[in-house]
Amino acid sequence: MAGRYDFASDNVAGAMPEVMDALVAANAGVASGYGTDHVSARAADLIRAELDADADIRFVASGTAANAWAVACLAQPHEAVLAHRHAHILTDETGAPGFFGSGVGLIGLPGESGRIEPAALEEALAKPEVSYHQPPAALSLTNTTEYGTVCTVAEFKALIDPVKALGYGVHLDGARLANAVAAGFDLKAVPKLGVDILIMGGTKAGSTPTEAIVILNKALARRFDNRLKHMGQLISKGRFVSAPWIGLLETGAWATRAAHANAMAKRLAALMPFPIIHPVEANGVFVEMDQPTLERLADHGWFVYRFLDGTVRFMCSWATTPEMVDELGEALKAVAEGAGNAASGSPQPQRPG
Amino acid sequence: MAGRYDFASDNVAGAMPEVMDALVAANAGVASGYGTDHVSARAADLIRAELDADADIRFVASGTAANAWAVACLAQPHEAVLAHRHAHILTDETGAPGFFGSGVGLIGLPGESGRIEPAALEEALAKPEVSYHQPPAALSLTNTTEYGTVCTVAEFKALIDPVKALGYGVHLDGARLANAVAAGFDLKAVPKLGVDILIMGGTKAGSTPTEAIVILNKALARRFDNRLKHMGQLISKGRFVSAPWIGLLETGAWATRAAHANAMAKRLAALMPFPIIHPVEANGVFVEMDQPTLERLADHGWFVYRFLDGTVRFMCSWATTPEMVDELGEALKAVAEGAGNAASGSPQPQRPG
Amino acid sequence: MAGRYDFASDNVAGAMPEVMDALVAANAGVASGYGTDHVSARAADLIRAELDADADIRFVASGTAANAWAVACLAQPHEAVLAHRHAHILTDETGAPGFFGSGVGLIGLPGESGRIEPAALEEALAKPEVSYHQPPAALSLTNTTEYGTVCTVAEFKALIDPVKALGYGVHLDGARLANAVAAGFDLKAVPKLGVDILIMGGTKAGSTPTEAIVILNKALARRFDNRLKHMGQLISKGRFVSAPWIGLLETGAWATRAAHANAMAKRLAALMPFPIIHPVEANGVFVEMDQPTLERLADHGWFVYRFLDGTVRFMCSWATTPEMVDELGEALKAVAEGAGNAASGSPQPQRPG
Amino acid sequence: MAGRYDFASDNVAGAMPEVMDALVAANAGVASGYGTDHVSARAADLIRAELDADADIRFVASGTAANAWAVACLAQPHEAVLAHRHAHILTDETGAPGFFGSGVGLIGLPGESGRIEPAALEEALAKPEVSYHQPPAALSLTNTTEYGTVCTVAEFKALIDPVKALGYGVHLDGARLANAVAAGFDLKAVPKLGVDILIMGGTKAGSTPTEAIVILNKALARRFDNRLKHMGQLISKGRFVSAPWIGLLETGAWATRAAHANAMAKRLAALMPFPIIHPVEANGVFVEMDQPTLERLADHGWFVYRFLDGTVRFMCSWATTPEMVDELGEALKAVAEGAGNAASGSPQPQRPG
Repeated sequence: MAGRYDFASDNVAGAMPEVMDALVAANAGVASGYGTDHVSARAADLIRAELDADADIRFVASGTAANAWAVACLAQPHEAVLAHRHAHILTDETGAPGFFGSGVGLIGLPGESGRIEPAALEEALAKPEVSYHQPPAALSLTNTTEYGTVCTVAEFKALIDPVKALGYGVHLDGARLANAVAAGFDLKAVPKLGVDILIMGGTKAGSTPTEAIVILNKALARRFDNRLKHMGQLISKGRFVSAPWIGLLETGAWATRAAHANAMAKRLAALMPFPIIHPVEANGVFVEMDQPTLERLADHGWFVYRFLDGTVRFMCSWATTPEMVDELGEALKAVAEGAGNAASGSPQPQRPG
Repeated sequence: MAGRYDFASDNVAGAMPEVMDALVAANAGVASGYGTDHVSARAADLIRAELDADADIRFVASGTAANAWAVACLAQPHEAVLAHRHAHILTDETGAPGFFGSGVGLIGLPGESGRIEPAALEEALAKPEVSYHQPPAALSLTNTTEYGTVCTVAEFKALIDPVKALGYGVHLDGARLANAVAAGFDLKAVPKLGVDILIMGGTKAGSTPTEAIVILNKALARRFDNRLKHMGQLISKGRFVSAPWIGLLETGAWATRAAHANAMAKRLAALMPFPIIHPVEANGVFVEMDQPTLERLADHGWFVYRFLDGTVRFMCSWATTPEMVDELGEALKAVAEGAGNAASGSPQPQRPG
Repeated sequence: MAGRYDFASDNVAGAMPEVMDALVAANAGVASGYGTDHVSARAADLIRAELDADADIRFVASGTAANAWAVACLAQPHEAVLAHRHAHILTDETGAPGFFGSGVGLIGLPGESGRIEPAALEEALAKPEVSYHQPPAALSLTNTTEYGTVCTVAEFKALIDPVKALGYGVHLDGARLANAVAAGFDLKAVPKLGVDILIMGGTKAGSTPTEAIVILNKALARRFDNRLKHMGQLISKGRFVSAPWIGLLETGAWATRAAHANAMAKRLAALMPFPIIHPVEANGVFVEMDQPTLERLADHGWFVYRFLDGTVRFMCSWATTPEMVDELGEALKAVAEGAGNAASGSPQPQRPG
Repeated sequence: MAGRYDFASDNVAGAMPEVMDALVAANAGVASGYGTDHVSARAADLIRAELDADADIRFVASGTAANAWAVACLAQPHEAVLAHRHAHILTDETGAPGFFGSGVGLIGLPGESGRIEPAALEEALAKPEVSYHQPPAALSLTNTTEYGTVCTVAEFKALIDPVKALGYGVHLDGARLANAVAAGFDLKAVPKLGVDILIMGGTKAGSTPTEAIVILNKALARRFDNRLKHMGQLISKGRFVSAPWIGLLETGAWATRAAHANAMAKRLAALMPFPIIHPVEANGVFVEMDQPTLERLADHGWFVYRFLDGTVRFMCSWATTPEMVDELGEALKAVAEGAGNAASGSPQPQRPG
């Protein structure tokens, strides 16, 4: 039986037709290089309209690079960025922020289901500064969080306000922002909240590789093309990294297909025979499942990953169909009832994003 | 009159149909993330076959990143890499090697038409080491060179042998390797010459963004996926950066379309009314043209760039047609005869790669 | 009342007379620069004799720099170094390893009283490698540990052997190595254990600023002077950073004065009215003391620091006298009995090394 | 015959008695760590008085580190600093600025005898910005220059004004500032000229290792102790790096002994039988001397170094005596007349700072 990774991550899916069409359309004719082309200009306009705000916008192929740069932009090497202790930048990016930021620090904060605990943030901000520690200079937020929950604008405001009061910066990792928006998060609130840098996720939303770097605090955009080039992120044929956004936004597919992914997660949650640990607010379902059970599931051909908090994650995407969910539901039911053979097919350690 | 950038660079063209078809084909179904997918495996096999050699192969969207990593891999931060003084890594990458290599040095060597002068290399290798300089640890070569010339295997051997005799590494920047191969350079000689890292160019050859990192010295590939992730170059939906190579290589389009680009350059050279400064061996024509003349050409709507050595460059690509060449030829003829109006349309400073 | 910092750290003391004499002696005449002088050569010889081993040796003024370089030398930027979770490199060096190592990672391991728990080390070494984490490449040890305990050769062997079995490197932070040696740790065992890089502490042992970088694995010393210069650690008048070692080692003062410091800690422990939390094996005494009590102690004029594990640390040095210990003992007794005024003199946050 | 390096550099001399006395005085008693001590406070006050300006001041043991940090402070990694093409930061510091500045660039400017040509600076500042180059963000000056000449305040003003007009920063490398001041350069003009960061040299002026980092633009000093710690430059027993300045400045020895060194250079110039290439304005004499002659001089036991411009450099220091100059003069005379044996004693390549 061939392994099925459909629910292993939302980046195992391909690209939606709207994106492929946009790529083909963008391919016509000559375009100037390094992001100065007409396609990138149009994509940036669409994002500004979506945010109802001015911003400097560029497109890169790697969310890790985009987030790592944001950290490096908002904190000096001898400073640190505060984030949830299980945020992607702390746990899953092989130390990339330290590379982009010449050893910049990261400080992990606790909090339920991927949400930062406000009291912990206040405590970190109030800590006396000493020369032998990296003091905080910025806050990094994530929406949808690592555990599939969606922060509200009010929750973000409660975290951002004390940070801005100190003159510190704010970064929003929006790898799964589409799912948060589909779940009710108001995208137009992001600029008003005081976010300095937003990384708006295209890839996991159903695109070919693209993430939009949205610099809301335009003072940070000075000589940004030079910075991108310096860090190996300025794509010569830039239109192919920006074009997907035309497909995602002109048609509304970015949000509507995320709503579909969220609905698939709800459907899966309804079928789930294992305890659901985190509220199912977007496209992920996190459950309690012991290792032998996980191995039996793999034996049934379904591969998913265990997370830092010990839960097992099932992710839905734009490409997930009700039939796939039901098929997985059957397997989960069988596994929960003890079927399967733990001797084979243990899940691979690689957790895809 | 709309400006025409067709000859400004070979990266202003879009992607060839073979590449777009391969992207569409690769989009089907589920694929594991971060370059572990079946498409990337197939693309790597095709490259190994092309080189007739074993190698670890990965795909990235930026040639700057690929080259900068290669420099950082072959030299410690307190060492340096030798290269032609006008090599792309020294002159056109915004210091990226220094970023990837934590301040690693670059030493520029002289040489006619982009070829490194062997005597200058020997002298650099023989220089006594002192603690206050960054001593050489590797050699970086380029084929096709920055000035459109094609080095022979024998020329490379004369440069590589003394470097390898000292135990130093060798990097080959192959952004325009397809054009060199189309001009007779034997690709299968690259592994035998002792090249440690080859960056095989897809983008300028007519692809969507992709460059293949070919690690011929496999000892350098240890934990390479971690390294890629750390430097923001591990693409989650990796199939979209590798698929183009299936289109480029299965059909032979990588080399045959480069041969076309080279032929277009010869056609342009035949029509050229200005002195040609470097031998036209691949897809570029470099000519002597004073600034008022260049401005008159812009006034006719054609934009091209002046290079470090003062020449003006015309680049052909897979997408250049005989009609485009002839049309440009007419404009050049008119300009050479003094037509045009220097008062408008000065060329933009941006030189696209 | 003027504050007294005598027990705040072992680096608040000045330099011992043996060191000052050696500095004055080294000042005579002309000496070649950048560590190539006769004084540095003599100091290195003395250290090699002390270790009974060959090694490449250099002298720097900062232990942070020496340790951070060692981390960067033993692990690539996309790898990590394992250390006790309260080791100085993790907690008290403002992220310096990440700067020297271009974002290199650090993995904290648990263990009682500053000793690494062997089972935790084994678990970390056995963890499956994934591209999105920084896998371990080396182990960093400390003796005397951060909590004043002294590891035995057998304890180190149990930690080092599984690390070397994987081909990984070993670093020993010896900021307080003299105190460990005075407590019975066999210095000559260090090379035999497979330590690759030893940082041998002079400053805290009673010198003016100097730490010896002892490269036991000489393959790591290639072009090391260039590396030192590149990272701003090659001192032009090098004799003034090496001369102290002649004073420290020719006379035996390095170890004998450390024995004195250790004896002072024992004396203090005997007088201590608060619970002692970690075994007093070298020159530090760590006790349980609540914040009001600590503030009353400050009110008596004595300033000491609270550590990561919540204990309060008292450090003795070569310059500590029995009278000073007794005087502090009186104050502690008074404070323990509830005297003092918590309204003034709260301890400064700065913890000096 | 033992080799004599007396004139090889001004850092081959030991420390003057005023400095040794200050070290001994500073050694008394307890002092808080990491530069927060009373000695460092006093030394900083003396420097502020000397400059007649407010400034944040710290002390480090390495001029390379101080200058490299200054470059990194004034330019982002994707920007560059302009300096004379033979400035120490470009030619003699093993790429340290690139390490401290994460790949920050350096742009070399021409100019006679170490002075930057104003027209070349203007041209560099006027160059159109492109994404593939590192644009200038600051200017680095040196006084005394690399070729022993002393810039006037007016000359500096002509260079600094156009730089400040663009909002760029200014760094002054003062490794030999004492010699410039002794030659008439007005130290108090430095703050008024708009210099942001001054590195004031102690070592070459006749101290044990110490350079003062003088941050005149105090906005750049934010969290500077953290930055120093992060880059391995925060010395725990900081008093030993600051104390020399009390000896240098309280007695006036910094300037008066530099005046002596300058006078010794004039005396040597008067005896010099070889063509003097650069004006002798401070403590160095640069002459034309072919390689066989230089080797004959070595054969006479005198070792000096050839510089980047091909001249041979003779440096005087606080410790140079008239007798030493006369003795060297005799040797030079003999060598000029053809004595000596070129077969032995070729000069070592190491040029000590």
